[in-house]
Amino acid sequence: MSVFQTYEQNNAAYASDFDKGALPMPPAKHVAIVTCMDARVEPASQLGINLGDAHVIRNAGGRAQDAVRNLVISQRLLGTREILVFHHTDCGMQTFKTEQLRGIVKDAAPGDSAVVNAVDKFDSFLEFTDVEGSVTEDVVFLKNHPLILAETTVTGWVYDVKTGKISRVV
Amino acid sequence: MSVFQTYEQNNAAYASDFDKGALPMPPAKHVAIVTCMDARVEPASQLGINLGDAHVIRNAGGRAQDAVRNLVISQRLLGTREILVFHHTDCGMQTFKTEQLRGIVKDAAPGDSAVVNAVDKFDSFLEFTDVEGSVTEDVVFLKNHPLILAETTVTGWVYDVKTGKISRVV
Repeated sequence: MSVFQTYEQNNAAYASDFDKGALPMPPAKHVAIVTCMDARVEPASQLGINLGDAHVIRNAGGRAQDAVRNLVISQRLLGTREILVFHHTDCGMQTFKTEQLRGIVKDAAPGDSAVVNAVDKFDSFLEFTDVEGSVTEDVVFLKNHPLILAETTVTGWVYDVKTGKISRVV
Repeated sequence: MSVFQTYEQNNAAYASDFDKGALPMPPAKHVAIVTCMDARVEPASQLGINLGDAHVIRNAGGRAQDAVRNLVISQRLLGTREILVFHHTDCGMQTFKTEQLRGIVKDAAPGDSAVVNAVDKFDSFLEFTDVEGSVTEDVVFLKNHPLILAETTVTGWVYDVKTGKISRVV
């Protein structure tokens, strides 16, 4: 059984007593969260986000550099004015270097030029070593970015996957 | 009070009885979800995802084109082999064209060449008109992408924000 069949069954139960169908499109709290795709990260419960309150952007590492398109849409079309950047402990982004990942991909498809060309298009997979350093870097990136509105409140945080606790870095 | 203060308080309550600190990094169900950042989307509860089970990638629209870096890391380093792509009804991506959004950004900063240059770097903000069409497009994109493993199960879905129900498109 593919996992999608489990999720389809779970969703039928969720939808059976769904009563939030009238929520508007813009986030009620005018906030956007940028965080990691990691399976141990679950922003709604870990931060107590109510449905309809916040944009949640998730990518490998929770990297702001990879979230600009999303934040422009969030701010300019849907009115968010606060951004929280979360990275987390024990992140997969601390386990490799771009050059190693390129090697893994190429070694799995020897002589396949389409694969080589596609993976070489990524200058960086945005890995990092120090989680507090990467959060700080991303907050500085957003505060200095010409497309992020100057009046935005931007804070940077680390989520600890062992304790469930967040702590503010910047 | 900034929203982050509310989330900091909420997290203290969450962490006070946290007991999932031993979960491993790779997703237990070997699955990655690609879905929208929309505030009315909340994959964990809507699909019944347990903590530790799935990578969750979220961007404006849930566009696969914007998720390749994440999926390469998810598949090659953390072992996922199934991808579910979700778009949803009443999406912000159906409300604008890239050219209009560029105009909004430029009009807000008249004569600012840094802003003009930054926004012109985006060939497209990946908007769409038809939600079933965009999901199908994204599934085809992933199935044909040289960096997505050939053995991957890829399905495409629409989440209905009025009813809470998902339905499979492809």
